[in-house]
Amino acid sequence: MAENKLPGLEETFPRSQKVHVGDLAVPHREIAQTGDNPPVKIYDTTGPQGFSAEQGLPHKRAEWTASRRQQGGDGNMSQMHWARQGHVTEEMRFVAQREDVTAEFVRERVASGQAIIPANVNHPELEPMIIGRDFLVKINANIGNSAVVSDIETEVDKLRWSTRWGADTVMDLSTGPDIHATREAIVRNSPVPIGTVPIYQALEKVDGLPEKLNIDLFIETLVEQAEQGVDYFTIHAGVLLAYVPMTAARVTGIVSRGGAIMAGWCLAHHRENFLYTHFEDICEVMKKYDVAFSLGDGLRPGSLADANDEAQFAELDTLGELTLKAWEHDVQVMVEGPGHVPMHLVAENMERQAAVCHGAPFYTLGPLTTDIAPGYDHITSAIGAAMIAQLGCAMLCYVTPKEHLGLPDLDDVRQGVVTYRIAAHAADVAKGHPGARLRDDALSKARYEFRWEDQFNLSLDPPTARSYHDATMPAAAAKEAHFCSMCGPRFCSMRITEDVRRYAAEHGYSEQDAIDHGLQEKADEYRRTRRSAA
Amino acid sequence: MAENKLPGLEETFPRSQKVHVGDLAVPHREIAQTGDNPPVKIYDTTGPQGFSAEQGLPHKRAEWTASRRQQGGDGNMSQMHWARQGHVTEEMRFVAQREDVTAEFVRERVASGQAIIPANVNHPELEPMIIGRDFLVKINANIGNSAVVSDIETEVDKLRWSTRWGADTVMDLSTGPDIHATREAIVRNSPVPIGTVPIYQALEKVDGLPEKLNIDLFIETLVEQAEQGVDYFTIHAGVLLAYVPMTAARVTGIVSRGGAIMAGWCLAHHRENFLYTHFEDICEVMKKYDVAFSLGDGLRPGSLADANDEAQFAELDTLGELTLKAWEHDVQVMVEGPGHVPMHLVAENMERQAAVCHGAPFYTLGPLTTDIAPGYDHITSAIGAAMIAQLGCAMLCYVTPKEHLGLPDLDDVRQGVVTYRIAAHAADVAKGHPGARLRDDALSKARYEFRWEDQFNLSLDPPTARSYHDATMPAAAAKEAHFCSMCGPRFCSMRITEDVRRYAAEHGYSEQDAIDHGLQEKADEYRRTRRSAA
Repeated sequence: MAENKLPGLEETFPRSQKVHVGDLAVPHREIAQTGDNPPVKIYDTTGPQGFSAEQGLPHKRAEWTASRRQQGGDGNMSQMHWARQGHVTEEMRFVAQREDVTAEFVRERVASGQAIIPANVNHPELEPMIIGRDFLVKINANIGNSAVVSDIETEVDKLRWSTRWGADTVMDLSTGPDIHATREAIVRNSPVPIGTVPIYQALEKVDGLPEKLNIDLFIETLVEQAEQGVDYFTIHAGVLLAYVPMTAARVTGIVSRGGAIMAGWCLAHHRENFLYTHFEDICEVMKKYDVAFSLGDGLRPGSLADANDEAQFAELDTLGELTLKAWEHDVQVMVEGPGHVPMHLVAENMERQAAVCHGAPFYTLGPLTTDIAPGYDHITSAIGAAMIAQLGCAMLCYVTPKEHLGLPDLDDVRQGVVTYRIAAHAADVAKGHPGARLRDDALSKARYEFRWEDQFNLSLDPPTARSYHDATMPAAAAKEAHFCSMCGPRFCSMRITEDVRRYAAEHGYSEQDAIDHGLQEKADEYRRTRRSAA
Repeated sequence: MAENKLPGLEETFPRSQKVHVGDLAVPHREIAQTGDNPPVKIYDTTGPQGFSAEQGLPHKRAEWTASRRQQGGDGNMSQMHWARQGHVTEEMRFVAQREDVTAEFVRERVASGQAIIPANVNHPELEPMIIGRDFLVKINANIGNSAVVSDIETEVDKLRWSTRWGADTVMDLSTGPDIHATREAIVRNSPVPIGTVPIYQALEKVDGLPEKLNIDLFIETLVEQAEQGVDYFTIHAGVLLAYVPMTAARVTGIVSRGGAIMAGWCLAHHRENFLYTHFEDICEVMKKYDVAFSLGDGLRPGSLADANDEAQFAELDTLGELTLKAWEHDVQVMVEGPGHVPMHLVAENMERQAAVCHGAPFYTLGPLTTDIAPGYDHITSAIGAAMIAQLGCAMLCYVTPKEHLGLPDLDDVRQGVVTYRIAAHAADVAKGHPGARLRDDALSKARYEFRWEDQFNLSLDPPTARSYHDATMPAAAAKEAHFCSMCGPRFCSMRITEDVRRYAAEHGYSEQDAIDHGLQEKADEYRRTRRSAA
């Protein structure tokens, strides 16, 4: 497979090494610094390295699930089920270590539905992670081929590339004839939870005609995918017949593929959405494998004009109702959100979702805050994503520069993931997440001290930072230089600041001194100090 | 000069044409659409085209200033001075037309100091614009060579490239021996206000040694630049001696070049900042040419760790005091702001500035909301910029992908400007600016109707949108296709939505029908309709 198209991990992250902590060997990445500056430990999503795509990743988690399968008597394998019985699973301990919280805190959040650990029992390659407003903000990358382009090798590369840059989960949105084989390759090679939209495959089975869909075919598809190890399913059970006409006057109608398919079915049969009427049958599959619901927002707005409208919020109310229904089965739930929302309407989305969905984690696509920038929608949406994450949104689905225009290639995936890591991290800092700012502070200190290599290595994308620096100052010596191309050697604000600081330190300089005007000798002294340092 | 390095305007914006409105010939850009969809008129910053750099732009504004020079008896040429005397200038009428408000509203805002029109009487090439929270959010692009790289031709190209993509003002931050000639070329070719930081040139005159600076040299530099036609000056008069030690414990000290220079001077002489003590002498120059103050935030934070600290807010208080002082002279003022600020501290910046600076326009650099993404700081900062603009910030200084790493090239300028247009526009929409959403709605409608060419042409960057589309579907026929590469021909949510809409329209479909279950014939009818349309 095309594995060697991607650069090695050590090339992407110089002076980084993986460390595995505790009896569960929870991975982190440690970034070394120069001098006596301490290493910085960060969350790591890259997974085990060096396995071929055919080989797949090691079955690290197999023991944990096997022992629970022996214990579990009632056939409900969900983390929520264990949590509600007071059982702390290995998955809970694993994420507790990752997030630097107690396992009991994790268990309690999962039991109450305020957080989920998507972890299909048939996904032994998984390094578990948690999604919930009390934890680090997570990001999802969408990959998947379509009828028009792409192949399996490319999709596995996109998976690896996504987790390389920091994707916490990956959704496989493949369509077309290779859908099963593509998904198999993705799950077997994924250290992160994999999500899918099963209705896409169900539709393939009925030649693309929505009205031919039915619940038996859908359940059969769920079982097929659950057997493969998919960790969460997007299911558009909230697109009710009565809501469909509410979209007729919209500027952009229904933009969710799954939403449009179910709306088409409802209209064709003039009957209620079968995903809604058979929701409990679906829960039976979900709990057997511990697949989490990602309750799809099939009526999400596709433009600013349609944001926060009747159709959107009617569906959200239904998603709240379905959340409670799933919880009756101890099935884990997150709820999907928009989409396209102007900044002043973002908060209402988070507040309503929290209220009507009883605190189940919110998982939004952006939202995009303007419609006028195709080609830059990773940016229009990063603004909305950072805002809604600050307000409590638990996971952000990335948007790439190709959104609305085409399928993302590897470079788009990288742009999308890095952009969303920025949004998520900005929100973690703003939420006051303990320790979130350590990396910012370390990087800023490195920048201030002209430790260029440390600045690059601590950044989200070291090769890009380095290449931008080298574009104006390529020489290796410039990496040692106490100035940069912005101001030039003689004209550097940071160097002048060093003088200020040195002076203050050496002379016990205080504010009082400054207001006191009898200190001419200090001024003279300062001048001499500055000269000799220059 | 290197003019022909840049593509023509019509290549960048296909199917756009300039229209000039009213007796002052105020420029707008009109984007034509296909079919009977009406053209969309947008704000235009590109200026007159087709003039060589040696030639410079036509002196469109010369008559207006000449007639006022004859009228004006007291030598104060500032727009604020005229406004306070109840005089509506051509500049005010020009910006009123651009912003779709009354000239009297503009006059009142300028008179009260809540908005400024930076318009040096010696800049006859200018197409006036207004900066204030009651107007469209503006963006500034920084250009300028340094001792290390760049030349005059490149800088004029960067100016043109900046305004091409939508920069409302441009700051020339050049240093080095060609500083005067570079500035001359920039002003003579600029349809937008030009800002500078005069202390950079003053420092050149004293061989880069801050302690050799003095007020006479500084005033001489101001006059030199004001004579050339610079429209606003960044002046770091708020860096007081007493505030300098407050920065000693910071992670990143003083990161403003101007701030560092003045702090160096203060420490060296152990005297108060001469820009502060001679502020009224400076006002005398400003009012004679109508140069606006951009009161520099020399102590702005350079990292999240330093945001909203004592030094920053002490300086801001002084900038408020200086605002009132400038207004006593009827000199226009805006106030600069940070920098690096985590999202949860952004609002405090806007609120404090509005309070202590009496509503003078705020002009911030970003702010960057995380420190961990060098190479992507256009994005880290667009998040903060959009947020602070929504709260009332009047102008946003762009940040390019090269921030902290090197000087921006043409592509970085484009990335920076487009990114900041996104932030400004998102804020205009969120502020409920009348008409701000028209372009979003037109583009979304085009997208929904698969009018690809219209979608590209209405976007902020048509060539990029087009090339991203063509990357997966290059054929010309694909521009007509009622599907895209994301879902493929048979599987398109927008097409299914068309069915929904058609059905609703044709059958007077209502919510009541949907809940009523006796409408089997409508379902059958729908099936037939869908088939024949497919």
